[in-house]
Amino acid sequence: MNMIEEIEGGITTPQGFKAAGVHSGVKYRALDLGMVYSDVPASAFVGYTSNDVKSAPVQVMMKENSPKLSAVVINSGNANALTGRRGVEDAIAMKQAVAKELNIDPIEVGVMSTGLIGRFVDLHKIRYGINRAVRALDLGREADSLFAEAIMTTDTIKKEFSVRTRLEDGTLVYIAAVSKGSGMISPHMKVLHGTTLSVVTTDANLSIDFRSKWQEILDDSLNMVSVDGDQSTNDTSILMANGKAGGKYADEDPEFIAALEMVMTKIAKTIAKDGEGATKLIEVQVTGADTKEDARKAVHKILNSPLVKSAIYGSDPNYGRIMMALGNSGCKFNIEDVRLTIKGGDLEVPILDMGAPVFQEERSVEVVRMAMDNTEVSILIDLAYGKESAVGWGCDLTYDYVRINAEYAS
Amino acid sequence: MNMIEEIEGGITTPQGFKAAGVHSGVKYRALDLGMVYSDVPASAFVGYTSNDVKSAPVQVMMKENSPKLSAVVINSGNANALTGRRGVEDAIAMKQAVAKELNIDPIEVGVMSTGLIGRFVDLHKIRYGINRAVRALDLGREADSLFAEAIMTTDTIKKEFSVRTRLEDGTLVYIAAVSKGSGMISPHMKVLHGTTLSVVTTDANLSIDFRSKWQEILDDSLNMVSVDGDQSTNDTSILMANGKAGGKYADEDPEFIAALEMVMTKIAKTIAKDGEGATKLIEVQVTGADTKEDARKAVHKILNSPLVKSAIYGSDPNYGRIMMALGNSGCKFNIEDVRLTIKGGDLEVPILDMGAPVFQEERSVEVVRMAMDNTEVSILIDLAYGKESAVGWGCDLTYDYVRINAEYAS
Repeated sequence: MNMIEEIEGGITTPQGFKAAGVHSGVKYRALDLGMVYSDVPASAFVGYTSNDVKSAPVQVMMKENSPKLSAVVINSGNANALTGRRGVEDAIAMKQAVAKELNIDPIEVGVMSTGLIGRFVDLHKIRYGINRAVRALDLGREADSLFAEAIMTTDTIKKEFSVRTRLEDGTLVYIAAVSKGSGMISPHMKVLHGTTLSVVTTDANLSIDFRSKWQEILDDSLNMVSVDGDQSTNDTSILMANGKAGGKYADEDPEFIAALEMVMTKIAKTIAKDGEGATKLIEVQVTGADTKEDARKAVHKILNSPLVKSAIYGSDPNYGRIMMALGNSGCKFNIEDVRLTIKGGDLEVPILDMGAPVFQEERSVEVVRMAMDNTEVSILIDLAYGKESAVGWGCDLTYDYVRINAEYAS
Repeated sequence: MNMIEEIEGGITTPQGFKAAGVHSGVKYRALDLGMVYSDVPASAFVGYTSNDVKSAPVQVMMKENSPKLSAVVINSGNANALTGRRGVEDAIAMKQAVAKELNIDPIEVGVMSTGLIGRFVDLHKIRYGINRAVRALDLGREADSLFAEAIMTTDTIKKEFSVRTRLEDGTLVYIAAVSKGSGMISPHMKVLHGTTLSVVTTDANLSIDFRSKWQEILDDSLNMVSVDGDQSTNDTSILMANGKAGGKYADEDPEFIAALEMVMTKIAKTIAKDGEGATKLIEVQVTGADTKEDARKAVHKILNSPLVKSAIYGSDPNYGRIMMALGNSGCKFNIEDVRLTIKGGDLEVPILDMGAPVFQEERSVEVVRMAMDNTEVSILIDLAYGKESAVGWGCDLTYDYVRINAEYAS
């Protein structure tokens, strides 16, 4: 029995959270500064980019590694990345400004940035925005919406998702996630691609030990999304749990875990679907792998292959490319045992068996093409080697991807 | 003093080699079967794809691992990959057919294939082609040219290069290399991309110990080429040294090594330049790395980044993407010490210093764009961390790449 209920809601749906989205002036007209605030300090669990070139806000937050956050400020329009020592000072100044306005300790303030790289932030504008945001903090659908808008860049789909569920002890808890991620074109220079910023709020009660579980959930959701295999300098995912719902620690509550996984998987798929220039969502599922790591490697290699991605864009039944990508992944398998199936719409076409294609006729190839000619295409690989599996999401490689990323935007 | 002289020549330029290129019928009209033959068994050094999904010919040759080859047969139009046990039997049958016609031992016959994957080869046609090729074996520029044509697929540039040099003991030796690589569109289905087949002939004398040196040279040349990071199932590079020039073993002769490196570097750059849809050659040079492996990892990650590649296509001065790719490479560095320079035409523009951009003004950004607006763009990164370096070649990501690889070609 699944008790998880999807609801119409956003970042302030869980009890005790407020949010705002304002215009600070970093962008020309659009909302460019968002803030989330919890009435009481919330247990915070944060995942960061593993890129060795980390933006200033990521560096600052990783160093502080604060177990509690009361507020998170996010500016869009400037990534504060590749900004050296001054960038770090600016990120700290942003935290201090928020802390002062909210009368809280700076260590309880999270900071994220997305936008132009290699430019210093205009602290004057940011401080003005912070002042406005603090006064605008509110709850409800309008606040949700302004916040979600303020952190968006070239996103074309609103990435907001909300559920409620009942814990084993009867406590009703809410979880909401807002995310941005697809890419960004600024008036002058484009940002590093695909920065993913996510804020997840919940009124459930979580202990500090939930950190490792949060990592696991990220590894199965956001970390399995790949638009182009290029990991941003700014990626950050924050989970804030303020315990306002009451009840016991939900750390190991199966309903809570399932609900959080559901929210994060939904967000992950939405980000993949909204990849730059994408026309199709690609899901890759690898089963029967020797290790979890093997399964993930295989999924990533297939999702990142420009040849696989462009074949799917053109509904070109070139399944050999999928096998080539698998062969390059370093994942263990015996080719004679591998089964490959392509799914799209109502069609589920077996392709490979005993290391050779199931068919050799033109007519069968046409069926593969028909399966690929859907907006959601699944690639299923059973390695029949071990017991581990992984699933991930990506998108096709299109003319628009090249256009978006090649255009000189000045 | 450099004694290496580039000459007009091809696969039969070194003494004792003959070649042919014929039409077997696997392709509709074009030449599709090439053969190289050495009067005397030649010492053979072979590099294979490290993809775990290997074509049948690669499997067969790796298993035999023959130290001497007298002939190599190459068919284009069918890759004999993903063809299971039957494919292996077919590859062996090809070797046997050549051996019989030439009256040599099958172990002295090399075999390579490129073309459609997942289809069984038509042995009847291939045998007919082999019979024709043996009778057509000849030396001279016409034979060179027919051979080079027979192994080409969608290649748009002829990849043939020839030099002569004098060894320390006074022996005059010739080296010639012919290569194919860019991608292929067949009438029915496209092949795995970018299969690189190379045959290098030389009349120098090499001992079996030269194997490790050949690996080193491949690692610095062909293995540093990346069109899309997708490694084919069929890649094979054969060096045949028949010793016809006489003289001592050239294994450690500095002139010979330098000449071979020059030939292979030239071939590597030509393949990169002819990448599918490419308009620009990108050279990435990483110096000051901790280890050679680190330097290579960084070069590959930058060359394979779709964001870097599409930025260079559009001459978009988005150098942050280069740093992002570097940060994702796993290569060791301290961001404060990294220097990044972009070169194109007469311009050499310093970009990054002390972890932040050298400039913040629009006008300077324009200079970067001008440097990128050339058909050859170099990215120079000095990590100032260690003493190792690497250089590699790739190409930009263009609309044409997507078109070539997305088109359903039936």
